Amino acid sequence: MEITVFTVLDTLGTLAFSISGATLAIKKRFDLFGVFVLAFVTSTGGGTIRDLIIGNTPVEWMSNNALIITIVFGAVAAVLLNPYMNKLNYYVYLFDAVGLGLFTMAGIQKGISNDFSIFICIALGTITATFGGLIRDLITGEQPMLLTRKEIYALAGATGGGVYFVLRWLSVPEEISLPFCIVLIFLIRHLTHRFNFKLPTYSEEGGWSIKD
Amino acid sequence: MEITVFTVLDTLGTLAFSISGATLAIKKRFDLFGVFVLAFVTSTGGGTIRDLIIGNTPVEWMSNNALIITIVFGAVAAVLLNPYMNKLNYYVYLFDAVGLGLFTMAGIQKGISNDFSIFICIALGTITATFGGLIRDLITGEQPMLLTRKEIYALAGATGGGVYFVLRWLSVPEEISLPFCIVLIFLIRHLTHRFNFKLPTYSEEGGWSIKD
Amino acid sequence: MEITVFTVLDTLGTLAFSISGATLAIKKRFDLFGVFVLAFVTSTGGGTIRDLIIGNTPVEWMSNNALIITIVFGAVAAVLLNPYMNKLNYYVYLFDAVGLGLFTMAGIQKGISNDFSIFICIALGTITATFGGLIRDLITGEQPMLLTRKEIYALAGATGGGVYFVLRWLSVPEEISLPFCIVLIFLIRHLTHRFNFKLPTYSEEGGWSIKD
Repeated sequence: MEITVFTVLDTLGTLAFSISGATLAIKKRFDLFGVFVLAFVTSTGGGTIRDLIIGNTPVEWMSNNALIITIVFGAVAAVLLNPYMNKLNYYVYLFDAVGLGLFTMAGIQKGISNDFSIFICIALGTITATFGGLIRDLITGEQPMLLTRKEIYALAGATGGGVYFVLRWLSVPEEISLPFCIVLIFLIRHLTHRFNFKLPTYSEEGGWSIKD
Repeated sequence: MEITVFTVLDTLGTLAFSISGATLAIKKRFDLFGVFVLAFVTSTGGGTIRDLIIGNTPVEWMSNNALIITIVFGAVAAVLLNPYMNKLNYYVYLFDAVGLGLFTMAGIQKGISNDFSIFICIALGTITATFGGLIRDLITGEQPMLLTRKEIYALAGATGGGVYFVLRWLSVPEEISLPFCIVLIFLIRHLTHRFNFKLPTYSEEGGWSIKD
Repeated sequence: MEITVFTVLDTLGTLAFSISGATLAIKKRFDLFGVFVLAFVTSTGGGTIRDLIIGNTPVEWMSNNALIITIVFGAVAAVLLNPYMNKLNYYVYLFDAVGLGLFTMAGIQKGISNDFSIFICIALGTITATFGGLIRDLITGEQPMLLTRKEIYALAGATGGGVYFVLRWLSVPEEISLPFCIVLIFLIRHLTHRFNFKLPTYSEEGGWSIKD
């Protein structure tokens, strides 16, 4: 197998989401097999939906054993390290934010190599980065991060994707623009979360505003 | 792109479901980006599943920019008009019922052009018309319309689909049978909802009956 | 249509899951159409996802009318027999356990005929056998069996799949190994359920243990 930019982003993102899913499973007191299952669906869910709607089958994880090994590695790491993680929720969130940046760029790479328009590429990036976490949250009964009403999540990915296409149009080399946008997505997600920054929501009294 | 009967039905249904999804998102106090995301998954969900199981990839919305524009238009309309909508729930329901008729017929058209049997065509129509709403309801935590136990919903689509094939067999022209069945589906859905008509459910005391 | 080992396993598993889904729908007081819809999604859900990720479209149930007839037969049987079933929950569970063994082996057969690795074959078997039930549980609001934390479910399928490949490697004939593994999966699921056997889960005080 040839190692491409997509492969590297996809493997690192898979590792991050595997740890995020396994950690949530441990926190929810799933058994050891359940920890692996949740690591698996969290890290493959977004890419599977991306590959299905493109028509790129068998989907990525079925033809790439390195991804399976990465998922097992992430789940084992989460199991071994969790006695040292004092706030499990925080690590679920943190590794999700890291994966968000990596998978958004992985999805965009796949969109570009399939000659889709910029809008569709950004949609593919956002779907890759958020749907694994959505499945993780739906089957564990967590409030889905994707639709949390109070946080900037998918928008961080979409914004980073937009910036990437601007940099591409300005002919900034990939070695600079890709890491830059991955860090940018992580920072948008993390800083808006930390400082409780919100987009406007609607209420009958005040119209559209950022008040709760 | 060639404009076909399918294209017209698909675009109008997309508009209806986009308004339905966006309105629910506003009612649930999602932020502006969340309003767009819910409009998007509600209006593309059913058609995406239909295209995936047929093997028609990339799926419709990825190769048809008019659909994306339609979704944005529907979401913006819902945002601008919502101060004038006094019962948001009612509009979620109403545009869903309009979309139900349009998407059932869109799905059936695609089934026919792929030479599937009548049963499979009706199943495709029903899936197209109900799975977007199912995804909308699952991710917002609403009681899913598809499985509400108390209302006639998917059955309205399936009945209209059956009537369409009877009319087709009687050689009634499409210009008559299509609008007729779309209105029929809307009316079955709306009147049974309004007059609280139910199918039998089972209880241990009374066997199968329509009592609650 | 040619009758293969896959066809037989797929049809019998479809029957079991149709009864399981229809029985849960009756218990949840769905109307008659809802009973059919839940029988349909429960029995086709796992195989549909399996076929989609392989890229085997149109998916199985769209090109095999015998499956549709089997689903209707299972749903009608559940409706007619339910006055004689005194503990509906038990039958939902029991037919799910029967279907678990049959669908795991059906999925593995399809994996083998597509030349996938042993790991991917077992994953395909487990997905076929558990995702229909997952969809059934998600849309009815039941605690998903797949992620129940307290029971051995998907692991029973994966274990039976592993044993099947060992027997295959030992050149045990299919006529023996297939029924053996189907019964084995059922027994692992049923006996661990009955005798409340668990895998270790994590708690902060005791580390990984099988205590609640």
